[in-house]
Amino acid sequence: MVAGADNQIFERRESVVRSYCRGVDVVLAGGRGSLVRDVHGREYVDFLAGAGALNYGHNDPDMKVALLEYIAGDGIAHGLDLYTDAKRGFLQAFEDLVLAPRGMDHHVQFTGPTGANGVEAALKLARKVTGRTNVIAFTRGFHGLSLGALAATANSTMRMAPHNALGGVTRMPYDGYLGPGTDTAELLAAVLADPSSGVDPPAAVLLETVQGEGGLDQASPRWLRRVAGLAREHGALLVVDDVQAGCGRTGTFFSTEAAGVVPDAVVLSKSLSGFGLPMSVVLVRPGYDLWEPGQHTGTFRGNAHAFVTATVALRKFWSTEAFTHDVHRRAGLVTERLTALADELPGARVKGRGLMQGVQVEPALAARTTRACVDAGLIIERAGPRGEVLKVFAPLTTPDDLLEHGLDLLAGCVLAGRPARAPQPA
Amino acid sequence: MVAGADNQIFERRESVVRSYCRGVDVVLAGGRGSLVRDVHGREYVDFLAGAGALNYGHNDPDMKVALLEYIAGDGIAHGLDLYTDAKRGFLQAFEDLVLAPRGMDHHVQFTGPTGANGVEAALKLARKVTGRTNVIAFTRGFHGLSLGALAATANSTMRMAPHNALGGVTRMPYDGYLGPGTDTAELLAAVLADPSSGVDPPAAVLLETVQGEGGLDQASPRWLRRVAGLAREHGALLVVDDVQAGCGRTGTFFSTEAAGVVPDAVVLSKSLSGFGLPMSVVLVRPGYDLWEPGQHTGTFRGNAHAFVTATVALRKFWSTEAFTHDVHRRAGLVTERLTALADELPGARVKGRGLMQGVQVEPALAARTTRACVDAGLIIERAGPRGEVLKVFAPLTTPDDLLEHGLDLLAGCVLAGRPARAPQPA
Amino acid sequence: MVAGADNQIFERRESVVRSYCRGVDVVLAGGRGSLVRDVHGREYVDFLAGAGALNYGHNDPDMKVALLEYIAGDGIAHGLDLYTDAKRGFLQAFEDLVLAPRGMDHHVQFTGPTGANGVEAALKLARKVTGRTNVIAFTRGFHGLSLGALAATANSTMRMAPHNALGGVTRMPYDGYLGPGTDTAELLAAVLADPSSGVDPPAAVLLETVQGEGGLDQASPRWLRRVAGLAREHGALLVVDDVQAGCGRTGTFFSTEAAGVVPDAVVLSKSLSGFGLPMSVVLVRPGYDLWEPGQHTGTFRGNAHAFVTATVALRKFWSTEAFTHDVHRRAGLVTERLTALADELPGARVKGRGLMQGVQVEPALAARTTRACVDAGLIIERAGPRGEVLKVFAPLTTPDDLLEHGLDLLAGCVLAGRPARAPQPA
Amino acid sequence: MVAGADNQIFERRESVVRSYCRGVDVVLAGGRGSLVRDVHGREYVDFLAGAGALNYGHNDPDMKVALLEYIAGDGIAHGLDLYTDAKRGFLQAFEDLVLAPRGMDHHVQFTGPTGANGVEAALKLARKVTGRTNVIAFTRGFHGLSLGALAATANSTMRMAPHNALGGVTRMPYDGYLGPGTDTAELLAAVLADPSSGVDPPAAVLLETVQGEGGLDQASPRWLRRVAGLAREHGALLVVDDVQAGCGRTGTFFSTEAAGVVPDAVVLSKSLSGFGLPMSVVLVRPGYDLWEPGQHTGTFRGNAHAFVTATVALRKFWSTEAFTHDVHRRAGLVTERLTALADELPGARVKGRGLMQGVQVEPALAARTTRACVDAGLIIERAGPRGEVLKVFAPLTTPDDLLEHGLDLLAGCVLAGRPARAPQPA
Repeated sequence: MVAGADNQIFERRESVVRSYCRGVDVVLAGGRGSLVRDVHGREYVDFLAGAGALNYGHNDPDMKVALLEYIAGDGIAHGLDLYTDAKRGFLQAFEDLVLAPRGMDHHVQFTGPTGANGVEAALKLARKVTGRTNVIAFTRGFHGLSLGALAATANSTMRMAPHNALGGVTRMPYDGYLGPGTDTAELLAAVLADPSSGVDPPAAVLLETVQGEGGLDQASPRWLRRVAGLAREHGALLVVDDVQAGCGRTGTFFSTEAAGVVPDAVVLSKSLSGFGLPMSVVLVRPGYDLWEPGQHTGTFRGNAHAFVTATVALRKFWSTEAFTHDVHRRAGLVTERLTALADELPGARVKGRGLMQGVQVEPALAARTTRACVDAGLIIERAGPRGEVLKVFAPLTTPDDLLEHGLDLLAGCVLAGRPARAPQPA
Repeated sequence: MVAGADNQIFERRESVVRSYCRGVDVVLAGGRGSLVRDVHGREYVDFLAGAGALNYGHNDPDMKVALLEYIAGDGIAHGLDLYTDAKRGFLQAFEDLVLAPRGMDHHVQFTGPTGANGVEAALKLARKVTGRTNVIAFTRGFHGLSLGALAATANSTMRMAPHNALGGVTRMPYDGYLGPGTDTAELLAAVLADPSSGVDPPAAVLLETVQGEGGLDQASPRWLRRVAGLAREHGALLVVDDVQAGCGRTGTFFSTEAAGVVPDAVVLSKSLSGFGLPMSVVLVRPGYDLWEPGQHTGTFRGNAHAFVTATVALRKFWSTEAFTHDVHRRAGLVTERLTALADELPGARVKGRGLMQGVQVEPALAARTTRACVDAGLIIERAGPRGEVLKVFAPLTTPDDLLEHGLDLLAGCVLAGRPARAPQPA
Repeated sequence: MVAGADNQIFERRESVVRSYCRGVDVVLAGGRGSLVRDVHGREYVDFLAGAGALNYGHNDPDMKVALLEYIAGDGIAHGLDLYTDAKRGFLQAFEDLVLAPRGMDHHVQFTGPTGANGVEAALKLARKVTGRTNVIAFTRGFHGLSLGALAATANSTMRMAPHNALGGVTRMPYDGYLGPGTDTAELLAAVLADPSSGVDPPAAVLLETVQGEGGLDQASPRWLRRVAGLAREHGALLVVDDVQAGCGRTGTFFSTEAAGVVPDAVVLSKSLSGFGLPMSVVLVRPGYDLWEPGQHTGTFRGNAHAFVTATVALRKFWSTEAFTHDVHRRAGLVTERLTALADELPGARVKGRGLMQGVQVEPALAARTTRACVDAGLIIERAGPRGEVLKVFAPLTTPDDLLEHGLDLLAGCVLAGRPARAPQPA
Repeated sequence: MVAGADNQIFERRESVVRSYCRGVDVVLAGGRGSLVRDVHGREYVDFLAGAGALNYGHNDPDMKVALLEYIAGDGIAHGLDLYTDAKRGFLQAFEDLVLAPRGMDHHVQFTGPTGANGVEAALKLARKVTGRTNVIAFTRGFHGLSLGALAATANSTMRMAPHNALGGVTRMPYDGYLGPGTDTAELLAAVLADPSSGVDPPAAVLLETVQGEGGLDQASPRWLRRVAGLAREHGALLVVDDVQAGCGRTGTFFSTEAAGVVPDAVVLSKSLSGFGLPMSVVLVRPGYDLWEPGQHTGTFRGNAHAFVTATVALRKFWSTEAFTHDVHRRAGLVTERLTALADELPGARVKGRGLMQGVQVEPALAARTTRACVDAGLIIERAGPRGEVLKVFAPLTTPDDLLEHGLDLLAGCVLAGRPARAPQPA
């Protein structure tokens, strides 16, 4: 890997908090579709895809044309929450292609353009609506790094206890956390029904359907429906953090569709703009949209460039079922290849669903693999409490042959990285 | 004002939290410099300027060219915190033109692209560095809407007590809060020196030098130096929220320069990208940059489009002193005109400094004025606890004659809106 | 039941928060052993025993003599934490009869004379010692009503959400909470071992071995040992709240003795003085006794009258094994009788152990029973989330025949109160 | 000072948290009136008086007789919150002699017998009544050590930041905190009136009229009335912590009487029982007595021995004005003598009022003085952030000549302890 002079300014001036660049020690200069290239012209298959922010790949040509035209025509770039034609176009497309077909009458709140800010808004609103403060969140959940969202986030390095007072959240075990024999939804049912459980009545139940950062554990449709029913029964809002699993990553636009669950509030971000531009929204049932005007604001909640590309993304990929079918086919391909790989590794297992799958191996092997992949021409990252899950997060638009190529590279690096001694499962 | 059909989708689908669009009920279609136009082609002088996010006006031609080229060339749009040539360019320009000339060895942390996220990061880091949890914040401070930042934000509508547990902050009176006879820094000095004050040793003192949302009250250089000295003396980080007052709004790049204070951490956002694109950074002294890798993350912390325009903005406006001189001249013009206006209004007074000035009038008159201005062709907004300050937030690049024209419109609307009876000062 | 004029001053002047007196609507005038009498001379068998504060009955003659002598001789009544001969006597007896025989080198902290204050002290100390803030507490736990203790208390009426910010506690399911098939200690083990569980490393694990207010659920010795091992393994203090279950209520002095567990800290109160006088202590391993002098105080932490009676109680009841044998025999008698009673009530079941047993019936039946018992000459109270457990809390010194008589009265009232229709189990 | 063998058990077994006994290193054996004696028969004048818990001295003969009779007659010692004749007697006396003559219709809540528990109850109730969580408390306030009370307590050693999350309190400067030129009530007025002050609408304003532990600063009647008016105006309960200043310490039964203020809630403890026995009450206006039955409990809230002595104390000392006159005369004597003493010490000053006065000297001199006093036969303690106030807390019943004797001893020790060099004021 070539580094040296390229990186001096980063090492001199960028905060030590930087992380991905430590494993992927190259300076990127461009990207198209599922490939990126560095300043030396070397290409890499991108199985990171902006951690889910580039579901449609880099620089989609249709979005690019629309954005270039918009900028060239002096379109509004920044509009706070003023009305713009760009926002109008997005809202119309979102209604036509996402909300109306699914029978959702939800309102759209544009928040500061981070997933965390959407989570913050959803939780504040749930607390206002219910007059309660408690929020149910789950083991290995990831919801962002600002304090309100961080209280619901499970990762201990990020929580930074005891430096921050992270209150108002009750932690419950996610589906499968105690193994197949225990239905963790029943623990939630028990504590919510018991006036002496010590778990205060919740304002919201906040969850991901597939835990993108936590390690690709997923909620079964049955568990999800049970939890949704408990939320409803106990007067809490079901808030789904679809920042990573939404926008088609699991095949459907919302990750809850497979279970037939319609949340009271959904947080979307990452791939919503389609082009990797910052954007975040909260969808909320009109009956719960009880904000005072201006009660939750944010300077960049009207990122018009993102509205322009998001509108193209919706019209291009979500007007028909074709895209969903493509994702499902590619997901099947990933499952097949990862399963084959896992079969060669004692203790390994395939996790996740859709194009949000990965393979859990020994943490040290996973770490070695990501580094080896960069040298081999593949960018891939890890998830899970100990970074033990190699996460195949290719753009949803990755051509099948390129997807297979990337999976070849991955399998090669994993198998080459195996220790001589018998590996220990994570 | 023409509304009607234009706005139906907003009313049907956008959350009731929307606010600016309630007073400025037009659909914007484009902007150039200090003018915006709506979908019907009508032009407005923009004295809102993205609430400080458009210090260089709309669609600056040089930034626009650079951005169009970057996109056309398939530059990386979204790169998490991977190294990109766009980020490298920004860091080099920022070092050359901002940090080095001011003798600052600060590190640059790219946070989620909202000012609030920068504040969250700075406070978390200060708590980690000091092992303390308390943060000193001030009356009428505004620092964002996520819980960690909101705890430091003063506005009661936004705080939403008692729905959110906003802990870890001690509120102190800002400079001048108790009138000219009381030096509020001495209260801070007293409580920090007194082991029985009930104010726990702080991790950070967080402040704005001019309170952009709170009503344009400003800290005198003397007060600011005193507070900076107290922070240093008591082992707390001085964190300056320069989201609104930074990037030249007061004439200098940092708003603290006039006082000769160099903060331990500075949060920049809004106009940093120059083009209105989402971007936020925390500058922090290297000795305090004690993050674990990845301990504070955010999907859009690598908004490469913003790096591209920010680099142009820095090189265009901050390579010489000319821009600062322009801002000071225009600020003098605003002071002169607002003072003349205030002289005609019993109880009115001019507040703020640089191009961050406003005139405080009766709240109802301020509200009437903003609405009348829209009809007259001027977009302007209000600040202060009761919205009593009309805030002249023109782009710093507004030509003098257009600035005068806008001020004419403002004065006309204010004076026309005066009640027949003697007005009551706010 | 005679009420009327007797109670007017209470109804006029005592706060509506009063509770036990609502069911037991008599004015008590005296007590001896396990009997109390009201102002009209009527006697009642006392199966409430000060909710566990009168383990040795009312006005034990030996303690009484000692106390009368002490007062008559102008002994110190109130001594803050000054050294007194009364405190010296207590400490010597406590060392000789409680600590030394059990090989415990614990220090004794005299706290404000409430169990809650002891819990507050123990948790504050655990947080100081570990530098952590999180405390593990359990479903249906009861630890007192001041905010630090209340955060660990499970009862929702008492928690008063959302009025109080009760932070710093993670709630876990108590032994048996999910039925016999699920070992809840394994959930604790899982979240403590998982760096992404969202459960921050705890300063303390706080528990009762039998949940006196929660409904007489008990921790099995195996579960208790497992939890103690987890606390040790993860650097947390095991804090046992033995306020109700200690001082012999389960047969041994500490309720943890049966499991062979020695906690890092134990909170004792209620029956510690022996005479019903206010007293509370925290026992803590010397290595954890890291207070600054005066860092936890309380005006009445030196209640010398209580030291005098406590010393007699220790020497009288804990010098030999005889008392423990008596309690076990009486406990057997209670088990036998309650089991027979439960057999006649579909859905009923016997809970607890030692002289801390009760029978769980339909909540409405339990409520009717307590009221009927007063008329029949028995004072008894209820526990559990819905008041569904009739709690046999006789003094440990109750003569067997009086114990049987009380149990007769109880059984009679329960059976007479059964509804004609088939009862529903709680 | 004789120590040695006497203290071994304390050093071996009592927690290092013990404090008063470190300066007063004797073992007390008895007390009568204002004198105590140690196990060696040596007598000491008691100017500590249980830190205000022994306003009527040790072992008042009338209370003693009543208590001996009560115990000898097998009166109820412990009654939870059941009705007892002892409690009835207390309530009647309290109504007749305290509440009715002052036109107070307040209800009486018996809390756990610590002042802290009373404060906890009052704050929880205020939060419930108002639906708010914020509480205004003041610099140098002391309200107890359990977390809810501790959040309002100012002393940093006791607060133990950052180990405990002490939320829900806004700290304001007490009367005189910024010197005579600044009326700190106006800061409170300003932040309560300002919707952008960042101080959330309070549930309660909690204060002491003389800060017993904080250093004997006092609120002027004017300031107190202003703060009471602000509380009323802004819908907050005025809660007065009269634990130390109440029960006659300042001359009147309540310390607020001089200012003509009737609080919404008053916490009484310390000298309420008259005999030094644990007891605590909250007095609350009936309209705010909105507890659910049993929502705040405590095992020892029915300490019947305390009711017995409290009833005697009320009838003996509060039936006429004579006692108040005595206290005022003795207070004058203390003022005179302390003023004379302070005149000899550059920088010293007299603080407090009633028999709650002290002299502020250099901290090191104060520390030397307390130790020297023990040797001289006087027990006295210090208050203030650095222990700089020697606190004359004689029983209110101290005969004038004994009071003068104690003051002689104090003056002698202070003057003997002066450094040769010019003393530095604290």
